[in-house]
Amino acid sequence: MAVTLGHNQYGKDEIRVVRVLRDAGPHTLLDYNVNVRLIGDFDAAHLEGDNSTVVPTDTTKNTVFAYAARDDVVTQPESFGLALARHFVDDVAAVAQARISLELYPWLRLTHDGVPHPHAFARSGAHVRTASVTYDGTGTWVVSGITDLTVLKTTGSAFEGFYTDQYTTLEPASDRILATSVTAQWWHGDHDRDWQRSFDTVLDALLDTFAGHHSKALQQTIWLMGEAALTADPGVNELRMTCPNAHHFLYDLERMGVDNPGLVFHADDRPYGLIEGSIRRDDAPDPGTAFDPGQGW
Amino acid sequence: MAVTLGHNQYGKDEIRVVRVLRDAGPHTLLDYNVNVRLIGDFDAAHLEGDNSTVVPTDTTKNTVFAYAARDDVVTQPESFGLALARHFVDDVAAVAQARISLELYPWLRLTHDGVPHPHAFARSGAHVRTASVTYDGTGTWVVSGITDLTVLKTTGSAFEGFYTDQYTTLEPASDRILATSVTAQWWHGDHDRDWQRSFDTVLDALLDTFAGHHSKALQQTIWLMGEAALTADPGVNELRMTCPNAHHFLYDLERMGVDNPGLVFHADDRPYGLIEGSIRRDDAPDPGTAFDPGQGW
Amino acid sequence: MAVTLGHNQYGKDEIRVVRVLRDAGPHTLLDYNVNVRLIGDFDAAHLEGDNSTVVPTDTTKNTVFAYAARDDVVTQPESFGLALARHFVDDVAAVAQARISLELYPWLRLTHDGVPHPHAFARSGAHVRTASVTYDGTGTWVVSGITDLTVLKTTGSAFEGFYTDQYTTLEPASDRILATSVTAQWWHGDHDRDWQRSFDTVLDALLDTFAGHHSKALQQTIWLMGEAALTADPGVNELRMTCPNAHHFLYDLERMGVDNPGLVFHADDRPYGLIEGSIRRDDAPDPGTAFDPGQGW
Amino acid sequence: MAVTLGHNQYGKDEIRVVRVLRDAGPHTLLDYNVNVRLIGDFDAAHLEGDNSTVVPTDTTKNTVFAYAARDDVVTQPESFGLALARHFVDDVAAVAQARISLELYPWLRLTHDGVPHPHAFARSGAHVRTASVTYDGTGTWVVSGITDLTVLKTTGSAFEGFYTDQYTTLEPASDRILATSVTAQWWHGDHDRDWQRSFDTVLDALLDTFAGHHSKALQQTIWLMGEAALTADPGVNELRMTCPNAHHFLYDLERMGVDNPGLVFHADDRPYGLIEGSIRRDDAPDPGTAFDPGQGW
Repeated sequence: MAVTLGHNQYGKDEIRVVRVLRDAGPHTLLDYNVNVRLIGDFDAAHLEGDNSTVVPTDTTKNTVFAYAARDDVVTQPESFGLALARHFVDDVAAVAQARISLELYPWLRLTHDGVPHPHAFARSGAHVRTASVTYDGTGTWVVSGITDLTVLKTTGSAFEGFYTDQYTTLEPASDRILATSVTAQWWHGDHDRDWQRSFDTVLDALLDTFAGHHSKALQQTIWLMGEAALTADPGVNELRMTCPNAHHFLYDLERMGVDNPGLVFHADDRPYGLIEGSIRRDDAPDPGTAFDPGQGW
Repeated sequence: MAVTLGHNQYGKDEIRVVRVLRDAGPHTLLDYNVNVRLIGDFDAAHLEGDNSTVVPTDTTKNTVFAYAARDDVVTQPESFGLALARHFVDDVAAVAQARISLELYPWLRLTHDGVPHPHAFARSGAHVRTASVTYDGTGTWVVSGITDLTVLKTTGSAFEGFYTDQYTTLEPASDRILATSVTAQWWHGDHDRDWQRSFDTVLDALLDTFAGHHSKALQQTIWLMGEAALTADPGVNELRMTCPNAHHFLYDLERMGVDNPGLVFHADDRPYGLIEGSIRRDDAPDPGTAFDPGQGW
Repeated sequence: MAVTLGHNQYGKDEIRVVRVLRDAGPHTLLDYNVNVRLIGDFDAAHLEGDNSTVVPTDTTKNTVFAYAARDDVVTQPESFGLALARHFVDDVAAVAQARISLELYPWLRLTHDGVPHPHAFARSGAHVRTASVTYDGTGTWVVSGITDLTVLKTTGSAFEGFYTDQYTTLEPASDRILATSVTAQWWHGDHDRDWQRSFDTVLDALLDTFAGHHSKALQQTIWLMGEAALTADPGVNELRMTCPNAHHFLYDLERMGVDNPGLVFHADDRPYGLIEGSIRRDDAPDPGTAFDPGQGW
Repeated sequence: MAVTLGHNQYGKDEIRVVRVLRDAGPHTLLDYNVNVRLIGDFDAAHLEGDNSTVVPTDTTKNTVFAYAARDDVVTQPESFGLALARHFVDDVAAVAQARISLELYPWLRLTHDGVPHPHAFARSGAHVRTASVTYDGTGTWVVSGITDLTVLKTTGSAFEGFYTDQYTTLEPASDRILATSVTAQWWHGDHDRDWQRSFDTVLDALLDTFAGHHSKALQQTIWLMGEAALTADPGVNELRMTCPNAHHFLYDLERMGVDNPGLVFHADDRPYGLIEGSIRRDDAPDPGTAFDPGQGW
């Protein structure tokens, strides 16, 4: 009944690196939050306190800042992640696999006297762009994504005909508010892509579909949004969505003698439904470690 | 050495009321977080547990939802707050003063097939619009505001020539990143205003000034932004700003043999400077209770 | 209609300083979050960008760390705050008033092999101890406090006999759960006190009273707790409490054929009541700036 | 190149159910946060908006509250989760697998007049107890856990002899502060256990080991703590730990002429190292879905 060391991994989280591109005319602002995760030959550190193979997390932080100085990789989260993952695996002997997860916070250019200003920005809180890149020396998995994209339909959504049992008290709704904060991740079939163009294409497909369809369930909405994204960008193998159902309940004003024909709602944030789905191409290979954060569940 | 009851107040916080305007053509979405605070004759509840004058906070919540059904007040946070404050003071005997604080979360209309969609929205995270209205049966104070407006200049900011003592280690900076998350509140001279137009005017003045000036200190930036706002909207008596200094430190890459001429920064969020200033008209009266939340400091 | 600079203040927030006392036997751990706020002659910085009187917030941070090395002040938040406030006002020409706000996170000593361990600790999350000290060169105000103290009574609480109007739907409750997260601040009559003993005395009085009384309203609970605290510690002039009402609603299980005689509750955290009260000695002077954070409301 | 639906799951999150045990003498308080996740035959909801097999998340919420009324299951998170998981899979036709994740917030009994009070409590913030139970009609996986357990050693920790490269700037430390917020999960070999006793045994082993050992790396600390837990409770097959390294940097006071021999530290919370490890029995079977939340990574 001996005890043994199983899977282990480590890294640095929430490295907040900001890069300014100054070369030509107006500045560009790249605002990143980077997480590094390394897997490899670190048994001796656990079992004996022998750190000779361990890259300190402080060093991984320094490395992220150093790579942010490279114009050829820093402009897209996917290329930034690829460069970092390849460095850790190819250049550090003990590292067998690296996973780089990035958040990119979008900023909007401000205007002054009615014209775009070359170096003043306001943060767009409309969404956060994400990427995660995994590399093990042989295989590479690039996943792009988005989070904190909050969308709402004031009509064009129903939830009816559901299963009932002794615990059912919900009334069917033929017309309700549908709201959710979308987190989506999509895995690319290759790594030589125009990342910005792909991101814009997928985001447009998600938003256009959310607006344009009549929803019979958040599950159906997820399916339709994902299907539209894969149709719009044939370079995507699989897309996963996680959508909390941000409930908006019609408030009972009749008790107070006030009419409420679909006008006033209570945005009730706990508890919430959480609906998750994957949409894949028929011929896509197994995603392997693409979406797998390792231990950090 | 008797003990006595001093100032007291109570209310309901974080009432999340969402209103849909459906009347004509495209829907409008109004997404509010409302706080109610009441001051009055509630000594017996404290001293004897006699609740006969106490409006339950549950009732104040119901009242907020009921007033959200009124088209004539709900479209602007200032008018919504005015109606609620007047109700509580004028209609409830024990209430001597009411303060309604509101947050309005802006949403953007989505497009579908290239045209604006009548009932699909995405939340703009660019800022939150706020208002607080105080009424005591005689006087009324309306304060508009904004929060979570995050802005950044990649250049055009310095901090030099400061006081030094034995605890000084900061180097003067002739060119630095300036970033802050603006919270501003401005007190109006009267209550018969076009609230939306005033809000847009002040926001434009704040942003245009932030972009357009060269900053020698965040204090100076606050002054210039506030001065511009009061100049742009003569109906504003006083504006107060609270600006955390979101530090961006040039990362020392020389240690690793990498050149860093103002390119790579560490966004370090704790601790942070906090700079606060008020800008007033010479002839403005004392703000009295306009900005005072009562006890809730 | 000229525009003028009004009240302004600045400082450094969330300075996370940890001090270890190593001198004799077991270590002591002091885990602080410190905020510094300075008021004074800083008009030129705003109006002209002339920083010659401005102590950089970076310097105030350094100063906090330097004072943390002093054994004679660091062990109590009140004495730590007093030393810092006096330094800024007495030693820095431009500073007219300083306010130091501190949070002290309590830690518990771990055991090993059944005996207390000299240098291993676990953080107690039961509450946070606070203090704020204000000094203007003449007057000194010391306020001690507590926050994040979450307490609950499963019975012994009612809310009945309240005011009703057309918006009332709440049913009177003769037996309900009462729960709140207490924030309290108390202002001392002098500054030569045994701070630890005073804190322990007040906390004991608050908790003992919360447990021992039958509550007819959270307002009454606040009054009784505050009265007990001022009775227990005659050195306290005034105590202010802010108590969110953490609602626990009996869940309607009858609909599902399950009996629920006061057993199963839904802890519903938004919206929440917020009840605030002050308890004072009859002969206490005006608190002046004791509780006033300045602009940062 | 058709698009197809892949893995999907849904449920309700953050169901805040509070149970009072009133039967005999002093009350007992059980304060839960419950998440439900269901996997099964829900393709039609996605592809056609046919909800006939879908248990609404509202119903799952009702079910959690109803089961909280059952004395035989509610007292331990593991038994509560087992009962709920079995219900969803065994009683609802479309559900093939259920995963119930629970947080239990511990409360401490207050005293009044020096004796334990029968119905007044204060929340212990020292940690949160967790459990997750997965059941697929055949197999059952029970995982117990703890989170938000923040521990610190003021000495008895080093980090030396690590790998260096061109990005290394960290100095080796022979004596440093070690601090972390422990999240641990451990998978049981069978499901007929005294859950409370097992939890207490594992927690004691973790804390005693953290206090008693000299750490050469956080990796080693994780290994030793896990090894001690598996030794103390032979019913545990595998334990996984996630430990953010809460950095405490010695503050450079020499620059200001102040000596700092291991006294004053800056608690710097971003970025942070994140160290994760698994400790297993040699003869433990594959954990299968025990630790796998499905899609919600």
